[in-house]
Amino acid sequence: MAVARLNVVCRERGTHEVASRLGDLAEWIADDMVGFEAELSGLVRGGSVVHRSAHHLLDLGGKHLRPICVALAAKLGSGFGPVARDLAMAVELMHNATLLHDDVIDVGELRRGQPAARLVYGNAATVLAGDWLLVEALKRIRRSGHQELLAPALDTLDEMIAAEAIQLENRGRVNLNRKDYFRVVDGKTAALFRLAMRAGATAGGLPAKQVTALERYGTHFGAAFQLVDDLLDVAGDPRLTGKTAFSDLHEGRMTYPLLLALQRDASLQRWVARLLRERADEPLPPRVRDRLQQTLRRTGIIHDCRALARRRAQDAIDCLAPLPAGPGRSVLASLAAIPVEREG
Amino acid sequence: MAVARLNVVCRERGTHEVASRLGDLAEWIADDMVGFEAELSGLVRGGSVVHRSAHHLLDLGGKHLRPICVALAAKLGSGFGPVARDLAMAVELMHNATLLHDDVIDVGELRRGQPAARLVYGNAATVLAGDWLLVEALKRIRRSGHQELLAPALDTLDEMIAAEAIQLENRGRVNLNRKDYFRVVDGKTAALFRLAMRAGATAGGLPAKQVTALERYGTHFGAAFQLVDDLLDVAGDPRLTGKTAFSDLHEGRMTYPLLLALQRDASLQRWVARLLRERADEPLPPRVRDRLQQTLRRTGIIHDCRALARRRAQDAIDCLAPLPAGPGRSVLASLAAIPVEREG
Repeated sequence: MAVARLNVVCRERGTHEVASRLGDLAEWIADDMVGFEAELSGLVRGGSVVHRSAHHLLDLGGKHLRPICVALAAKLGSGFGPVARDLAMAVELMHNATLLHDDVIDVGELRRGQPAARLVYGNAATVLAGDWLLVEALKRIRRSGHQELLAPALDTLDEMIAAEAIQLENRGRVNLNRKDYFRVVDGKTAALFRLAMRAGATAGGLPAKQVTALERYGTHFGAAFQLVDDLLDVAGDPRLTGKTAFSDLHEGRMTYPLLLALQRDASLQRWVARLLRERADEPLPPRVRDRLQQTLRRTGIIHDCRALARRRAQDAIDCLAPLPAGPGRSVLASLAAIPVEREG
Repeated sequence: MAVARLNVVCRERGTHEVASRLGDLAEWIADDMVGFEAELSGLVRGGSVVHRSAHHLLDLGGKHLRPICVALAAKLGSGFGPVARDLAMAVELMHNATLLHDDVIDVGELRRGQPAARLVYGNAATVLAGDWLLVEALKRIRRSGHQELLAPALDTLDEMIAAEAIQLENRGRVNLNRKDYFRVVDGKTAALFRLAMRAGATAGGLPAKQVTALERYGTHFGAAFQLVDDLLDVAGDPRLTGKTAFSDLHEGRMTYPLLLALQRDASLQRWVARLLRERADEPLPPRVRDRLQQTLRRTGIIHDCRALARRRAQDAIDCLAPLPAGPGRSVLASLAAIPVEREG
């Protein structure tokens, strides 16, 4: 189950303290997530190639961090009932819809350690599978009765599409600037975590000030998460991430750690520019890979990226101030450690 | 403007009577469609490759039959105001979203007589462009204030996806049956015309019985429209349709006229099966093309398909009985002639 996976993703770096806090978190939402996962695996299996393509991805599980966010926010209020579960489904389905389309867009090969759905069922079925999950997500928001969440959900989708557009327009280009990188992080990842917190808080009936505080928490949490995601792409262990190493480079995408690497070792510029431009399928030439990894370590990029992620995680924790002290709030503070400590 | 195009698409077969009825129709909604088209061309042009891909398709115009349906239904009631215009935008954007995804799915080349958006801006931008238009469509339904239309809109999208899935699963196969063919027609085309009529009728404040009658009208109208679309693919003039001749065959899709052709000339079976399976880019071998076109004419398939379309158009007209007599109703009756008479 998803909560167990939280410990797995942190197992390498996880201190005893982190492990124990994640244990508390897991216990706090265990029953809720069982309910959620039953609902997710009960999603119609019509047997068409479109359903099969969607389930190929869904059945690989994932960390379910976005529904966990919905659950934690809802439990600060009236709890994780059927309405909050519908909303947790909605954010998870939105997430998976974008992953399916992303794989088609980026010609991605590995997802959650397995061949991407588009490789198994083809691009056509996978575009439709993404469309289907998007429709299913919006149906659940409608069914939840919280019509007021529809506008922020559609705005979130808009932000995600705009972020993908920036990525697409900069594909193959070495000169992505810091500002555009963080706009992509915000649109691609932070926006959906923000929505997850808002949805959970709304279902839980929290007062407006607390909803806003949790939205801010989601934004910082999501940014920290994406930062470490991009770091793991260049410096992580593919056995833990479930993705091809350097997939960002292979797919022509500049990220923050790469941006820092080029600033700190100008001799890499030419190589990275070429790799981005060519978007070759072959593994990185060993010489470039070694040089890049050396730069990442030696010039402190790994440390700096983790530090930035830690700062955004702390920003997330600081946002929790308006919430009443209690187990719900401290579990959310524990959750903020995940992006920073994660290895997969 | 769109209404002028209605006459153009019918110009070859159009009798004087049809031309005059279409003239009345054009006059009846001329101002409304000017407003609609201003709104459509005012859709954000953010300049990103995603927006450009979407506008590439939107700027080619099209017949705007779905928004015309919304306008005609709304004018049976309180008229075509800003709310109905939002809903007209929604159905047109849904239609274009599916066209963009369809072109990626079917590897389509020509659309409205021009290279498909995916050829100009790439598959990646075009998948996102479809996503964007879908989100824009749903935003307009939300903004219209008619939240009750959200469920049927999402159901319509579901039906469209399911129809695409049937098409995809049968791609390259010669043995599509009549039942599946008509399920595809209903999901792919009739469902959105049904929604357009419902949306317009709702915006116009019509009583439930009239809304239902108009939904039925939309279903029959849409089916007639798609039937003739499939006929024109094999027997139409590409200069009028704006599409490559035999694109269904090239894209591995069996349609009703092809199904009849194989029933009436078994010797075509082997050829058509091979063409469907191979999905070659080259034009049809002249021998097969001539034989196919001969069969379509000689065995009365063109006549039979037109007759079936005419029957569905008549069914549509029969659905208008519960509506009060008047110019609105007779214009809808005229509209029903379009699928039957159209050449493009």
